[in-house]
Amino acid sequence: MTKNIKLGLFGFGVVGQGLYDVLNKAKGINADVYKICVKDRNKRRTIPDFHFTFDPDDIINNPEIDVVVEIINDADEAYKIVTASLKNGKHVVTANKKMLAEHLEELVQLQQQYNVSLLYEASSCGAIPIIRNLEEYYDNELLYSVSGIFNGTSNYILTKIFNENLTYDVALKQAQDLGFAETDPTSDVGGFDPKYKLVIIAAHAYGLFVNPKDVFNYGIQHLSKHDIRFAMEKGYRIKLVPTAVKLNHKKVTLFVMPQFVDKEHYLYDVDNENNGVVVEAAFADKQFFYGKGAGGHPTGSAVLSDISALTYNYRYEYKKFLQQDKLQYTTDIEIEIYIRYENESDLKSLKFLNISEKYFGKDFKYLIGTVVLSDLIKAKELLQNKNTFIVDTGKDLRLKGETVQKSVEEVAETL
Amino acid sequence: MTKNIKLGLFGFGVVGQGLYDVLNKAKGINADVYKICVKDRNKRRTIPDFHFTFDPDDIINNPEIDVVVEIINDADEAYKIVTASLKNGKHVVTANKKMLAEHLEELVQLQQQYNVSLLYEASSCGAIPIIRNLEEYYDNELLYSVSGIFNGTSNYILTKIFNENLTYDVALKQAQDLGFAETDPTSDVGGFDPKYKLVIIAAHAYGLFVNPKDVFNYGIQHLSKHDIRFAMEKGYRIKLVPTAVKLNHKKVTLFVMPQFVDKEHYLYDVDNENNGVVVEAAFADKQFFYGKGAGGHPTGSAVLSDISALTYNYRYEYKKFLQQDKLQYTTDIEIEIYIRYENESDLKSLKFLNISEKYFGKDFKYLIGTVVLSDLIKAKELLQNKNTFIVDTGKDLRLKGETVQKSVEEVAETL
Repeated sequence: MTKNIKLGLFGFGVVGQGLYDVLNKAKGINADVYKICVKDRNKRRTIPDFHFTFDPDDIINNPEIDVVVEIINDADEAYKIVTASLKNGKHVVTANKKMLAEHLEELVQLQQQYNVSLLYEASSCGAIPIIRNLEEYYDNELLYSVSGIFNGTSNYILTKIFNENLTYDVALKQAQDLGFAETDPTSDVGGFDPKYKLVIIAAHAYGLFVNPKDVFNYGIQHLSKHDIRFAMEKGYRIKLVPTAVKLNHKKVTLFVMPQFVDKEHYLYDVDNENNGVVVEAAFADKQFFYGKGAGGHPTGSAVLSDISALTYNYRYEYKKFLQQDKLQYTTDIEIEIYIRYENESDLKSLKFLNISEKYFGKDFKYLIGTVVLSDLIKAKELLQNKNTFIVDTGKDLRLKGETVQKSVEEVAETL
Repeated sequence: MTKNIKLGLFGFGVVGQGLYDVLNKAKGINADVYKICVKDRNKRRTIPDFHFTFDPDDIINNPEIDVVVEIINDADEAYKIVTASLKNGKHVVTANKKMLAEHLEELVQLQQQYNVSLLYEASSCGAIPIIRNLEEYYDNELLYSVSGIFNGTSNYILTKIFNENLTYDVALKQAQDLGFAETDPTSDVGGFDPKYKLVIIAAHAYGLFVNPKDVFNYGIQHLSKHDIRFAMEKGYRIKLVPTAVKLNHKKVTLFVMPQFVDKEHYLYDVDNENNGVVVEAAFADKQFFYGKGAGGHPTGSAVLSDISALTYNYRYEYKKFLQQDKLQYTTDIEIEIYIRYENESDLKSLKFLNISEKYFGKDFKYLIGTVVLSDLIKAKELLQNKNTFIVDTGKDLRLKGETVQKSVEEVAETL
């Protein structure tokens, strides 16, 4: 029924070792690690030397190997490995979200051209099977939105801040000491990592390939004690939330921004390094998926699930991409934000459509108002100012100049 | 890439109409309703008469029809329709959990014998794609447990009790008035409906076909103000929880029982008619799925997802059932329960391995202790006594006579 698979592995870090553990424990899968390509010749490994090679060609050009599993960090290197492998007729499993987000359209073409399958469940939200579910289960659903917590590191920091009253700097330091955050944490706390995942998810949710460069991401680096106190007084927590929303039957928007979430929100209790995904669809209504977003074993488990799917010739169908009515990506949407600022003059670079709250204090000023996302993107100087912090208030989005749509049902009518 | 499908529909109640709505809205699916078989000749319908027939053979024996969708309530009638359709070479989508739970093994054989596909995502937990995920995503995972809230009606009643301080009788009456509960609510509040779902889920989680008659289900009918007060004082809510647990590499247990859940528990906040599923696996760790468990549109959406899957020839593989190391079903497990009782003599029919708490009051007596599930099943008179109520304390289960296993990691070692 299923075929036996010979695996060539690139990378033997946390995920690689996790996968190796999982493969050894799982009984039902016909797959063996044939060769592992690593970079560092001097590193001590936990398994015997004969498994390893230092030459990528030992895997890419090896006719014995059916499936290449790429789990290295370097996105450019990963791109080379993945494209060369696909072109050599090998199926590929990868977890590299940056590489995928930047090259997805080309990678889909390569799959068709060389009749091979590229799977990447582990790239987004670790053990949560979100891509497979979007691809398989929501394929004909009128999908309104996908959002959530896609980055464990920033969520760990925010949890420490909101549950244990740490400051941003102390929480970041703690995350770094524990190995949750890198020395340069920008990819995580700046919202780049969740943006790559959002771009991948949007491809499967909406059949839309968006260049990550065109997607707004604003992180949590400027979060101050004033913002924290403001949120806490209102009973909110701040989460770093990537959002994909279909606004009507033609337009989809994507962005990553801190968001206020209240106690009733699914994401409120998603703590520490965990991930959560909220899917809103016209008929299935709201659904919530929760699980471990990172780590060797959860990610290894997602990689294994892809390997297992390859034993019965599974491939993503990209059905929505192939459908006729293509959706368009837009940043012409109205979004209500909270903005902390220092001087009135700082705000000049941003046009507010309306202002619902404004507060002046000795060392704290904020405003809540509606802006157009494309205007916000242009206000680079304001956003880079460390005395500024913006938060999505979580209010319903609307297309620039359109009337407010209130319920999922009403929105469904327009999808 | 996908073929066009002609559907024959049995039943046009809430789910049938929901499906019809969803089908009309969904653009990406090549499926048309060809004929709808209904019983009542006099009922007014929302769509034109020519769609309807009163003769099942108009669908079952119609060579034009590719797929039969069975969404009637009567399990025996459904069994006849489903088996006749499969034998006639038609693929079938059904939502009938009772019929499935009672005949699953035979239905798997029929699928193989007649080379057809039977899909039933809508049978368990409405819009939550739990069967597909267990089948596809956890296929090689070391799955420790699956549990959750699988019945919207009983959960609605429990929510009214714990969130709005209603009594059981008032909450039940309200659910009946709103159409959430039947005039005879036994299937829901007695834990039969969630048991059927548990049996179906166990087939996909563990490759195990268990007769629902052999699975213990104890409902919420005897819940009294004393139990409610006890739970509230401890900060617990009571939920009706179906549980499937793998105890070691050979044994699996299943049962449905009320359970105390605290604030930290995933199921604590699953309110009203919503469903939630907690999956624990050795490598993916804990995962939680949340969504609408019932209703025309969510169920219709799950049925549609199955129809859509048939357009690309999807079928369940029952991989775990086909694997060599078959698991066995057992009720020889030790479980800690809370029991409210009236007279000491009532307890004589049940052997307690140990007792951790005992309380005597004028009109309230309870005991917390460990029993063997198979002994509990035998204590019929005690369980039928309306002055008795039992609740699973949620403590880790263990095989009769075995040592306690504490963490998922430790358990994983034995799986």
